[in-house]
Amino acid sequence: MEKITPRKLQGFWELMPEEEEIFDNMISTLKDVFKANCFMPLDTPVAEYSDILLAKSGGDIDKEIYNFTKGSTELCLRYDLTVPLARFVAMNYNVLNFPFKRYQVGKVYRGERPQKGRFREFYQCDADVIGDGELPLTYDAECIKLYEPCFKALGFDATVEISNRKILAGFFETLKDVENITDLMIIVDKVDKLKREDITEMFLEKGVKQEELSKIYSIIDTKGVIEKVSALKPLTDNETFQKGIAELEEVDRYLKALSMPNYTFNLSIVRGHNYYTGTVFEVFIDGRRELGAMGGGGRYDNLCGSYIDQNMQGVGMSIGITRLFDAMKSEKLSENSSNITLGILTFDETVTNGLELVNFFRNNSVKADLIGVGKSFKAKMKEANRRNIPYILILGESELASKIYPLKNMRLGAQENLSKEEIVAKLSK
Amino acid sequence: MEKITPRKLQGFWELMPEEEEIFDNMISTLKDVFKANCFMPLDTPVAEYSDILLAKSGGDIDKEIYNFTKGSTELCLRYDLTVPLARFVAMNYNVLNFPFKRYQVGKVYRGERPQKGRFREFYQCDADVIGDGELPLTYDAECIKLYEPCFKALGFDATVEISNRKILAGFFETLKDVENITDLMIIVDKVDKLKREDITEMFLEKGVKQEELSKIYSIIDTKGVIEKVSALKPLTDNETFQKGIAELEEVDRYLKALSMPNYTFNLSIVRGHNYYTGTVFEVFIDGRRELGAMGGGGRYDNLCGSYIDQNMQGVGMSIGITRLFDAMKSEKLSENSSNITLGILTFDETVTNGLELVNFFRNNSVKADLIGVGKSFKAKMKEANRRNIPYILILGESELASKIYPLKNMRLGAQENLSKEEIVAKLSK
Repeated sequence: MEKITPRKLQGFWELMPEEEEIFDNMISTLKDVFKANCFMPLDTPVAEYSDILLAKSGGDIDKEIYNFTKGSTELCLRYDLTVPLARFVAMNYNVLNFPFKRYQVGKVYRGERPQKGRFREFYQCDADVIGDGELPLTYDAECIKLYEPCFKALGFDATVEISNRKILAGFFETLKDVENITDLMIIVDKVDKLKREDITEMFLEKGVKQEELSKIYSIIDTKGVIEKVSALKPLTDNETFQKGIAELEEVDRYLKALSMPNYTFNLSIVRGHNYYTGTVFEVFIDGRRELGAMGGGGRYDNLCGSYIDQNMQGVGMSIGITRLFDAMKSEKLSENSSNITLGILTFDETVTNGLELVNFFRNNSVKADLIGVGKSFKAKMKEANRRNIPYILILGESELASKIYPLKNMRLGAQENLSKEEIVAKLSK
Repeated sequence: MEKITPRKLQGFWELMPEEEEIFDNMISTLKDVFKANCFMPLDTPVAEYSDILLAKSGGDIDKEIYNFTKGSTELCLRYDLTVPLARFVAMNYNVLNFPFKRYQVGKVYRGERPQKGRFREFYQCDADVIGDGELPLTYDAECIKLYEPCFKALGFDATVEISNRKILAGFFETLKDVENITDLMIIVDKVDKLKREDITEMFLEKGVKQEELSKIYSIIDTKGVIEKVSALKPLTDNETFQKGIAELEEVDRYLKALSMPNYTFNLSIVRGHNYYTGTVFEVFIDGRRELGAMGGGGRYDNLCGSYIDQNMQGVGMSIGITRLFDAMKSEKLSENSSNITLGILTFDETVTNGLELVNFFRNNSVKADLIGVGKSFKAKMKEANRRNIPYILILGESELASKIYPLKNMRLGAQENLSKEEIVAKLSK
């Protein structure tokens, strides 16, 4: 029979089982945190009607989007979890309870050229709160605070850096000769990556006056406690600007009430997306800022505007689980863990007895398994080593008679003779 | 702005949050059982190269398969989890440890006409053991046994019904004038659904002699303990037939060693798929046989034959999680559970204090949340009711002063005045 070379689609997500175990545990851990914080799970289809998915773009199919036809139906694979959320909320507006707190962990699709760190299929992990109309700022604080238990559960200390787009947007409104505020926001988004003189040049090109520059920088360079933000108030009495500062002050009060340990204000944060309209934030692992933001989010208006008339305000946080996984996997993999805690090596005549032991140990929370059934003893030992199994037990006739089993620690080489109950006491967690 | 009516693709999987919470917990529970039994997780892409996915069919695209083109690449959405497993094993043959025990829970796609109980996007849940060459029958027993902790963890008693295709296949080999054994297997697959006289007629049409019928029925009607299977041995000395019985006897010994509580033999079980070559089984919820099989599986040869030369034997079990979810959801939903255990109703001046309490309770494993921030008191109460929240607490200035909080049981209407520590003692699980 002609063979077809087995290949996986380039850039699509697939881990080896040892890695997948770590990744899957990471997702389970995060889901538990979301649930403990009263967020509800959502699981939408990977595909949507094309007109639904492309509503915001006016129906133009971006070349990054996977689209296809089935019968007379035009479909697209989802490229994020936000558009499906908007569709879901709009569709179920009459039956959902608002504010609607949902989390979703799922795969999304972008037909980019695959390269290091860029995937065509990858996971997103979002938690959002959607309000029917106005949504209190308590939820902005709650989304920010959520990072703390999430990262703690994964073994990281992390700090959230917070801003409010109204501050810069309001100040930019006061500038004469500036046509497009979005252009200036795009420049601010690059402040961390480019030299200050290049930033200056870009501002001047967009019509910013030399004398306004220092004020812009006094905003952008504001970092630290809320008092530093409040100190900016004399800069302008623009209403949007003042509202942005007042919102941050309110969020700060709520974060203190929530005992959020690690956050700071950083007014250079704007987040790329234009749909953010207020609070914006990014999270960084302490001491590992060079890895980049491990997530971010913010406040947006009118989530469902493409589908229904109701103004749905929302605030959401996301965790960059692919990047986070990269940060943790090398460490976790080097722990040399195995999915088997206790390997049982039988002889042909003790296989059935071996299964009895496997059943006993599994019933007592020890991950036991038969190793190399039907193979030579040498092959069994080789398999136990290859699988990194920490403990093994060789089951012969004499062990069956005495009911005392030689438990061998494969890392230390030491051996103890124990009853099965003693082995449980030692190995169950 | 022109609105686009929000719609979901017909037949694609999407639950309301209350249902999704039950479904998601069901999957988590099953994953934990698989892990405790030393199975490793696998997560393959939802799409594969078309030639890989269609290898078995010789490249013909079944109209049920979602296929599409991206650039010059032909892709298909996976229609099961077995073909991706075969591709994964073939691709990673040199680095995997065999026997390779993997589980996978994931969505699959079939472009069927949507109807009750038929989905275009739905979940499959599989656990398989793949051997490099011969795979001991201990793994057949292990896959069967796995149903017990899975169903127990979900709150069901279930019974596995077991057969071995070699028994019927071997007997059919001895029949003269029968051209196609597969035809006869297809008839056996219908024994449960059709009247005996119709089955008889179908056998006769396929060339089975009247005098052979009673022997076929003596096999098909064999149900119960292993001794009944063993009693069939005198029927024919056909080698395949005898091997089938011997294999079942061996599996029975292993199941006893594993203390499997609920299983029975039922030689009318053949499973639809032709690729099963030995042990086959189906699982039914006790007392709910009318709901149909809640899963099944069996032994197959040459999993990766389309991709590599190595003969990979396997045995696998699957759980029909959609059907199982239907069986459990009405019961679980009627428990009137809420994702919030304790709703805190604040006044405008106590919102910040309310957040402090929310944080305290969540840190102590009570799912607490603010209810109706910014709304009227009447609207807050209405929201607490609509969300089915079991306990609420109204936080005014006097409660802040006394640090004694009125905890109201919303189902009983009763109220107790408690400290926050006493509330934790009462509500944390």
